[in-house]
Amino acid sequence: MPHLNLSADVVTLTEQLVNIESVSHHEAAIADAVEAALRTLPHLDVTRRGHTIVARTTLGLGERVVVAGHLDTVPPNDNLPARREDTAEGGILHGLGTCDMKGGDAVMLKLAADVTDPNRDLTFIFYEAEEVDSEHNGLRKLTVSDPDLVAADFAILMEPSNAAVEAGCQGTMRVDVRTTGERAHSARSWKGVNAIHLASPILARLNDYVAREPEIDGLRYHEGLNATGIRGGVAGNVIPDECVVEVNFRFAPDRSEADAEAFVRDFFEGYDVTVTDLAAGAMPGLDRPAAKAFVEAVGGEVAPKFGWTDVAQFTTLGVPAVNFGPGDPMFAHKQDEHVPIEHIERCERMLKQWLGGQA
Amino acid sequence: MPHLNLSADVVTLTEQLVNIESVSHHEAAIADAVEAALRTLPHLDVTRRGHTIVARTTLGLGERVVVAGHLDTVPPNDNLPARREDTAEGGILHGLGTCDMKGGDAVMLKLAADVTDPNRDLTFIFYEAEEVDSEHNGLRKLTVSDPDLVAADFAILMEPSNAAVEAGCQGTMRVDVRTTGERAHSARSWKGVNAIHLASPILARLNDYVAREPEIDGLRYHEGLNATGIRGGVAGNVIPDECVVEVNFRFAPDRSEADAEAFVRDFFEGYDVTVTDLAAGAMPGLDRPAAKAFVEAVGGEVAPKFGWTDVAQFTTLGVPAVNFGPGDPMFAHKQDEHVPIEHIERCERMLKQWLGGQA
Repeated sequence: MPHLNLSADVVTLTEQLVNIESVSHHEAAIADAVEAALRTLPHLDVTRRGHTIVARTTLGLGERVVVAGHLDTVPPNDNLPARREDTAEGGILHGLGTCDMKGGDAVMLKLAADVTDPNRDLTFIFYEAEEVDSEHNGLRKLTVSDPDLVAADFAILMEPSNAAVEAGCQGTMRVDVRTTGERAHSARSWKGVNAIHLASPILARLNDYVAREPEIDGLRYHEGLNATGIRGGVAGNVIPDECVVEVNFRFAPDRSEADAEAFVRDFFEGYDVTVTDLAAGAMPGLDRPAAKAFVEAVGGEVAPKFGWTDVAQFTTLGVPAVNFGPGDPMFAHKQDEHVPIEHIERCERMLKQWLGGQA
Repeated sequence: MPHLNLSADVVTLTEQLVNIESVSHHEAAIADAVEAALRTLPHLDVTRRGHTIVARTTLGLGERVVVAGHLDTVPPNDNLPARREDTAEGGILHGLGTCDMKGGDAVMLKLAADVTDPNRDLTFIFYEAEEVDSEHNGLRKLTVSDPDLVAADFAILMEPSNAAVEAGCQGTMRVDVRTTGERAHSARSWKGVNAIHLASPILARLNDYVAREPEIDGLRYHEGLNATGIRGGVAGNVIPDECVVEVNFRFAPDRSEADAEAFVRDFFEGYDVTVTDLAAGAMPGLDRPAAKAFVEAVGGEVAPKFGWTDVAQFTTLGVPAVNFGPGDPMFAHKQDEHVPIEHIERCERMLKQWLGGQA
């Protein structure tokens, strides 16, 4: 089993986490390593559900804060293992998951190990399957199986946000848009109906899409409608009778789930549309007292969050929550994913200060 | 092992062959059954290469005729097992492979069993992997490994041709047409380039394609250009960086392989095109004496062959060859594939008469 060294510095710990490959649905190894490391810390109660690990203080303090991060990544793209680079602007750590979000996970592990006498009770949640359909999401499952473990006065998600506060999040919906034709031998193609050719207008509409960019609570969001997959074909000499375009709609938090679905069904009018995944966004929520207090404590500007994050899960539970983690989210899921080392160190320092640990 | 009963009538034998599933690359079971049946016939020398079975008379007669058929089918489409239907126009046998081409294979088995004293030496070739890339084609492999087994004065392919003579065949080429984009997180899609969206003009061009229908030796051919597959996508929240459209071009026999490739590269100008499979067609060849003699003997009209068939393999070897088999090729590879029982019986009767057996 890979070993995590909690006495190493936060950047070394990030490297160790990155080098344990953990594509969604394959988080056993990293969850084992995280669990083993946390179980060495006597001030924490550790619970495991699937590949989701929860570690809590139970000091009976007046306030409880959740700090959460997912352990999974998208598939590798020739970007493992981790690699350090020194640049004029400072050190950088390259590799899959450096930004989304093992830098944040490493900060959580350091907080868990070093803040043994916090000013607020702490709940650390390391969870599985954030990068796939929301039905698999480890945090979502935990809110159903063990709501007491998720309860808190405030939540901080370590999702990449340039080590600054990003508020709210956009929603996400996945649909399959399907065409149906008729099979025939490709040597007599005029006797069939080619379902892939029928998908041409679907791609044309996607090409013509213009994104809405609404301003909400002073923050400018940015929607997106994209094919993330396409499949069709029976054999090399058969006119195919089905083609499926998998579409992902990212929508601003002023749309409800129902609004988002109505928009997509109208956009693909005339086609067979099946919703396969739908998760609402979260309004910025900067008017909540706990959110205000944290933002003031870390002294930061606030930006909108474009990606869907589990901020929305906490919003549903009535827990105010913000995103605050190392890394520029623009590099999440890209071949050249990386994180500035200064971001990781800054998040660790600011959170330790706020939670009353040694910074 | 499934058993084939050579003393059954040709239609029952067709049913037995249909009910041995034999999708390309999975022909072991049917080849075993055919081999075992042929080895019970003392007047034939049987040779096996992979899942290709050759059975020959060696009577030293003045002329040798090859009768050939492939054993594989396209994938099932809820159309197995075989099912008989009586209609006002006569009996029909439904099911995958009834038309393409186990009716023809059954005729070959009946000729092998019953024409024990032929007026020409006979070579029966039952071969694998005709429905996939030509590199796997069992007949093609045999021409390389055992050219003596393929040598003949004339060849008859039992490919479906309405129990009439279909001359020549169209060529076939497969290409991958590829787009390349840049991955990004789908929540910030404007930072990537969507390779699936880039494929939109490829499908638009295919939709606008108008088929050429040239007349050659009095026969009207009909070309076709079709997507037979499409694939793209990395994960549900990633803007994909690659999309591949698999295209099949069926071209009339007046085009060379080079002409066909030039046409397709020009058609998809601006895109990355990779040729994955290319097999030339065959000119009708009705001016060849052996072809003329057979056509006269069976007294039939001659039509053009749209599908690529191994007529082209024989043309390359200098052996005149025609298509002559039961079934309407329009129903090959379709969900409702079927063959008129009368076609199977007529092919058996006419070939037995021509070869000097008991009709």
